[in-house]
Amino acid sequence: MTSDLHRLSATELARGLQSRSLTAEAVARACLARVAERDGELKAWVHVDADQVLAQARALDQGPVRGLLHGLPIGVKDVFDTHDMPTQYGSPIYAGHRPSVDAAPVALAREAGALLLGKTATTEFSTFQASPTRNPRNVKHTPGGSSSGSCAAVGSDMVPLAFGAQTAASIIRPAAYCGVVGYKPSFGFISRVGVKALSDTLDTIGCVARTVDDVALFAAALSGDKTLADLPVIQQPLRVGLCKPHADKLLPETHAAMELAAKKLSAAGAKVVKIALSPDHAQLTQAHIDIMAFETARALSDERQRHGDHISTGLRGVIDKGLQMNYTHYAAQLRYVEETRATLPALYARCDVLLAPSAAGEAPLFEAGTGDPTWCRMWTLLGLPCVHLPFTHGPQGLPVGLQAIGPMHADRATLAAAAWMMQKLRG
Amino acid sequence: MTSDLHRLSATELARGLQSRSLTAEAVARACLARVAERDGELKAWVHVDADQVLAQARALDQGPVRGLLHGLPIGVKDVFDTHDMPTQYGSPIYAGHRPSVDAAPVALAREAGALLLGKTATTEFSTFQASPTRNPRNVKHTPGGSSSGSCAAVGSDMVPLAFGAQTAASIIRPAAYCGVVGYKPSFGFISRVGVKALSDTLDTIGCVARTVDDVALFAAALSGDKTLADLPVIQQPLRVGLCKPHADKLLPETHAAMELAAKKLSAAGAKVVKIALSPDHAQLTQAHIDIMAFETARALSDERQRHGDHISTGLRGVIDKGLQMNYTHYAAQLRYVEETRATLPALYARCDVLLAPSAAGEAPLFEAGTGDPTWCRMWTLLGLPCVHLPFTHGPQGLPVGLQAIGPMHADRATLAAAAWMMQKLRG
Repeated sequence: MTSDLHRLSATELARGLQSRSLTAEAVARACLARVAERDGELKAWVHVDADQVLAQARALDQGPVRGLLHGLPIGVKDVFDTHDMPTQYGSPIYAGHRPSVDAAPVALAREAGALLLGKTATTEFSTFQASPTRNPRNVKHTPGGSSSGSCAAVGSDMVPLAFGAQTAASIIRPAAYCGVVGYKPSFGFISRVGVKALSDTLDTIGCVARTVDDVALFAAALSGDKTLADLPVIQQPLRVGLCKPHADKLLPETHAAMELAAKKLSAAGAKVVKIALSPDHAQLTQAHIDIMAFETARALSDERQRHGDHISTGLRGVIDKGLQMNYTHYAAQLRYVEETRATLPALYARCDVLLAPSAAGEAPLFEAGTGDPTWCRMWTLLGLPCVHLPFTHGPQGLPVGLQAIGPMHADRATLAAAAWMMQKLRG
Repeated sequence: MTSDLHRLSATELARGLQSRSLTAEAVARACLARVAERDGELKAWVHVDADQVLAQARALDQGPVRGLLHGLPIGVKDVFDTHDMPTQYGSPIYAGHRPSVDAAPVALAREAGALLLGKTATTEFSTFQASPTRNPRNVKHTPGGSSSGSCAAVGSDMVPLAFGAQTAASIIRPAAYCGVVGYKPSFGFISRVGVKALSDTLDTIGCVARTVDDVALFAAALSGDKTLADLPVIQQPLRVGLCKPHADKLLPETHAAMELAAKKLSAAGAKVVKIALSPDHAQLTQAHIDIMAFETARALSDERQRHGDHISTGLRGVIDKGLQMNYTHYAAQLRYVEETRATLPALYARCDVLLAPSAAGEAPLFEAGTGDPTWCRMWTLLGLPCVHLPFTHGPQGLPVGLQAIGPMHADRATLAAAAWMMQKLRG
């Protein structure tokens, strides 16, 4: 059944590709056919060169098995530099831009045998201005941003794996809206060299897939931690800390998802406790907003000066705010974050993993923009590993889920906990 | 005396340029003449286009005063991307490379009116493989690395200001060998977007000049903290903590410099105390080595795979070590650094600023390489602001000095203390 290969998970495909019972070309052809079928409507891709993809696939089939990702088709968010594909960062300033070098995570994926299927649509420099991408569950809705194309492509079975990057909510929120698994690792876990920068304190590379094992496999090839390819099985009863920041702004479907999760996970043997983040969430969210504005304003210095007319009004507003911000205020916010990070070990003495909202609720309508990043800002700021778990639906039939948030650098344990919870939540 | 303009400090030149009693063109001509006179021997520059420089200078003279750096000639280390000059990162892999965008700090310097005189020589990707640059005090010796050209150019009065970047010792060590002021700010103080990356945890942008006021002026234009342009005068007796890590490897001239500094600063009214770093220096130095290797190995992923033959044997060794390193070990070293950073407030309760060696002693011979980075690794790792102060000489008549090291984010107070100490040490 070659024509259904695009529906398999990366882990399933990898078995066939590693044993050579499947060819990279057959997998590529199935994915390309799916792109041809769905992308006219979804607009997840900004660049796919089928001939180039098939030539790559044949070269992989003719050579030795290269690594963990051998022959797996992967979407590359178009803020990652690629030496053999255009890279536009979602901005008209970079129309036709051809980097001379691959971003480090792209080079590492290639080294592990990945088949780069093309570049996926992103918002302007990973900020707010939406790409034309539509939600694969309902094209009247946004896929979320900024990893819009990556999540739409994975959610519509065009590709089993895709790169994402998160500065505020850019992996977890679109994963939630598209009903896929999104993984934002611990800060610094995957090299971000060659990925268009917004904020040194926040920018984090991650990935999306349709299963937790798949994001773990992808990250095993990209990070220094190969043991992620084989996640441990949870033995002890998992201690899950339910956490509801900004509860007043949540939609009913997310309250319901929290209750459903508590019930199902308790029934499966987890110890579920309620956790209140200390200090106040609102303060952390504001610190994120301030630090991102201060750093983004400087990161885009050349674009602001030489191509200011081609920067959207929304982004220009953030830049102006960042330029006007007092250095003392910015440094005080950085210190505050450091102090808060120091309180996290006490929090994780009470639970193994937090479970918290990924977004307010279902995906908003396309015209309303890419959604509110409020529920991700604090976790990105704290640098903690986050995994979005899609497991239920809202009143409009669109996906709803929650994110698991683990301790700093405990990515393997967090993914293992996420895999266990995913199984119980979907059961 | 137009012909002596190249000898003036940036602060002195700025007075004339801001009041328009000096033209940018006259300053540029003096610097270009000095380059013509000295650079055949010193090889500090990899790119200077005199016509382009003079056209820029005339444009600055014809327009309004643009900012703090109006008309000041600046050398740009050739690991900083420039949209109008080639950028080779000290590697044959990038021969003829022309980035399409300025690095953020370059764009910010231009915005403040800086006159970019050209690109200065660097070691291979800011690591070990030396550029052909010679020490301006004695051409038989190394200028140090990796900001070799920037320090040689400033030390030989070709330019009053130059960009540097430090991952291990790349600003402070060449500043020490060339007898100039080197400033490595607090980690993250100046945006590093568009500067060739080695290590996300360590890479720090800074600058070199001939006076402390000059590096402060430069940083005022680049960072978000404009108050650096007007440093406070030290009022209270300064508490100086003398710190001698790796004392057994220091050369006699550095022991003598420490004693001389203690004597002069005490005589000038400072409270000089001895400080022993806790925990052990050797452990911090090793943590730096490990973290740098792990991250550098990944940062250069594309170059390693597609251009491995053009990477030097020394750098290849670091990359191989980084690729072989266990992730758990790397993460443990990161945690150790975080714990050590948490002990720093207690240290800085005892003194306002540390004073410590910048290098073993005088510059080694050219053939011996760019020198030992041991005395800078731990401070870069801790992210603390460092200022090299040149104030004495060694047995071969070459420059010797010490570095002032202040608390995190206290760049203004650290520079003020450095300026005060510089005055007393040279007096």
